[in-house]
Amino acid sequence: MTNDTFLRALLREPTDYTPVWIMRQAGRYLPEYNATRKRAGSFLALAKTPELACEVTLQPLARYALDAAILFSDILTVPDAMGLGLSFAEGEGPRFARTVRTEAEVAQLREADLDSLRYVFDAVSLIRKSLGGRVPLIGFSGSPFTLACYMIEGGGSDDFRHVKSMLYARPDLLHKILATLARSVTAYLNAQIAAGAQAVMVFDTWGGALSDAAYREFSLAYARAVLAGLTREAEGRVVPRIFFTKGGGLWLEAMAQSGADALGLDWTVDIGDARRRVGGQVALQGNMDPFALFAPPEAIAREAHRILGRFGTAPGHVFNLGHGVSQFTPPEHIHALVEAVHGYRGA
Amino acid sequence: MTNDTFLRALLREPTDYTPVWIMRQAGRYLPEYNATRKRAGSFLALAKTPELACEVTLQPLARYALDAAILFSDILTVPDAMGLGLSFAEGEGPRFARTVRTEAEVAQLREADLDSLRYVFDAVSLIRKSLGGRVPLIGFSGSPFTLACYMIEGGGSDDFRHVKSMLYARPDLLHKILATLARSVTAYLNAQIAAGAQAVMVFDTWGGALSDAAYREFSLAYARAVLAGLTREAEGRVVPRIFFTKGGGLWLEAMAQSGADALGLDWTVDIGDARRRVGGQVALQGNMDPFALFAPPEAIAREAHRILGRFGTAPGHVFNLGHGVSQFTPPEHIHALVEAVHGYRGA
Repeated sequence: MTNDTFLRALLREPTDYTPVWIMRQAGRYLPEYNATRKRAGSFLALAKTPELACEVTLQPLARYALDAAILFSDILTVPDAMGLGLSFAEGEGPRFARTVRTEAEVAQLREADLDSLRYVFDAVSLIRKSLGGRVPLIGFSGSPFTLACYMIEGGGSDDFRHVKSMLYARPDLLHKILATLARSVTAYLNAQIAAGAQAVMVFDTWGGALSDAAYREFSLAYARAVLAGLTREAEGRVVPRIFFTKGGGLWLEAMAQSGADALGLDWTVDIGDARRRVGGQVALQGNMDPFALFAPPEAIAREAHRILGRFGTAPGHVFNLGHGVSQFTPPEHIHALVEAVHGYRGA
Repeated sequence: MTNDTFLRALLREPTDYTPVWIMRQAGRYLPEYNATRKRAGSFLALAKTPELACEVTLQPLARYALDAAILFSDILTVPDAMGLGLSFAEGEGPRFARTVRTEAEVAQLREADLDSLRYVFDAVSLIRKSLGGRVPLIGFSGSPFTLACYMIEGGGSDDFRHVKSMLYARPDLLHKILATLARSVTAYLNAQIAAGAQAVMVFDTWGGALSDAAYREFSLAYARAVLAGLTREAEGRVVPRIFFTKGGGLWLEAMAQSGADALGLDWTVDIGDARRRVGGQVALQGNMDPFALFAPPEAIAREAHRILGRFGTAPGHVFNLGHGVSQFTPPEHIHALVEAVHGYRGA
């Protein structure tokens, strides 16, 4: 591999500089992404066509000196492969044709059919081939709890009304859903690794909506089950695991015991404090406020350097945003960020 | 006063039971609130008519054995009194006719005109009279940072694009706005105290959207300035101060140094951990997930008792939700919650 800085940083090995990639780096802020998406006809067609998924995965790498590629896909492919009927209405969020709320619906739930997810594994193989060893490829999945949120609500939610009704009233049903999801997510990520993913990331987008007690019982426990079941080595190298709970800053000590090699941090945590809390156990990925990218390049560089300074000189930092890049970000601001990170030479 | 349990708990004095009130207890989940609001014609007319504001303030106390009343008002009355032209379109959030974004707009900003806020102070006096000493009355304001968010964005926002552009590009402008707001909020809360408010709460709804460093510089510092300027005693009693940053669980130690007597906690923090971190310095208010109220009464009681058990037996706990009650909450579930808190006799 030409550049394995990212993989080494995840394992807290020394690197010449801090590697950087950007959550949602293949996304709507890029005109070329929008052009490919238009050509595909819909977001889901884009995600389900390996050639097009490969094309958009590589687009940000053509513009910026990023240290990793991430599979272009959607976190909801797994519940879709459980037969729930995923769709995206134009300009709206995801919808499922079927929800999982009643005892009968929970009893009927089956593990994801991996055959129907072949388009994902084909995309992984194709991207690996197209990358030609330039940088590592990250595979990913939503966490069991985050997937359960969408499956129970039937789409996005701002109050998780059905999820929380179930959690407090019928925790046994939620546990059943999560156990099925944990097995599916494990198999899904292992199939991505088999197809060529060189690192994997578990996105727990909604765990931060839970109370401390509920987070540990319903989100963290199932993320831990997934991480414990993952293939450790492929192609003679360790496949590092990143675990990210948005809004999880309070729980870093527990997350560091999850079996992850690295924790993703949103921007509310001071990364220096995070390093003191868990840096001896895991690498850290993050954590610039994605909305700081609305500021001019000088301000972006200043904020990136402040974060790098807070992390300090120990190995084990992968620079990233604290959440996905906004579609309204000027593309040249990402350039400024990547240059600022790679150009940093200490305080 | 017939029942001053709430005030004593805020000052960490012993009480016979844990007092409870509910953020947004006078709100849309109550049919009688919706009837009064309809009669008023609009949300703003309701907030600006002291007799009607008094009426809805008292409504939840007629239903439930709550230990405090809170002034019915809106956090945006202060920027409205700065001349920004507040309005609420039906079914939508707040809008300001004028925003504060440019250097010229910041230079033109003046402190809030307290005379134009007389309707708030009149409501406070009227509510005190109507309460007849049954329970204490809480006055409140938005924090300077939270008010600045609305003033700069011109309304609600899910990315705080303009706020964060200013924060990272022109921090000097944001500091000017915040300094003006801190003086206005201090004067506003002191006028509420003079009119009869027996405790005050500063709501920092959006501080949790900031990075650790930005929170300390732009939110906490100005909340501290407000708290330092508040009248300490009225009617021969201390007027306790509550400071609440939603999503502020990482910053409790710093918040405990803000001059507040009590900190509000959202539901992501374990209240037992919070007590260990700061309980020797401040009381704690919280912290049940408001969406746990969608569950049946037995589950609500179980969760309330779990939180009471986590806090433990030390004085200094005011039970509340971790955020405002949802409009979709069945009113009888609040009854179950209040009974569960008052009936708790230890683990």
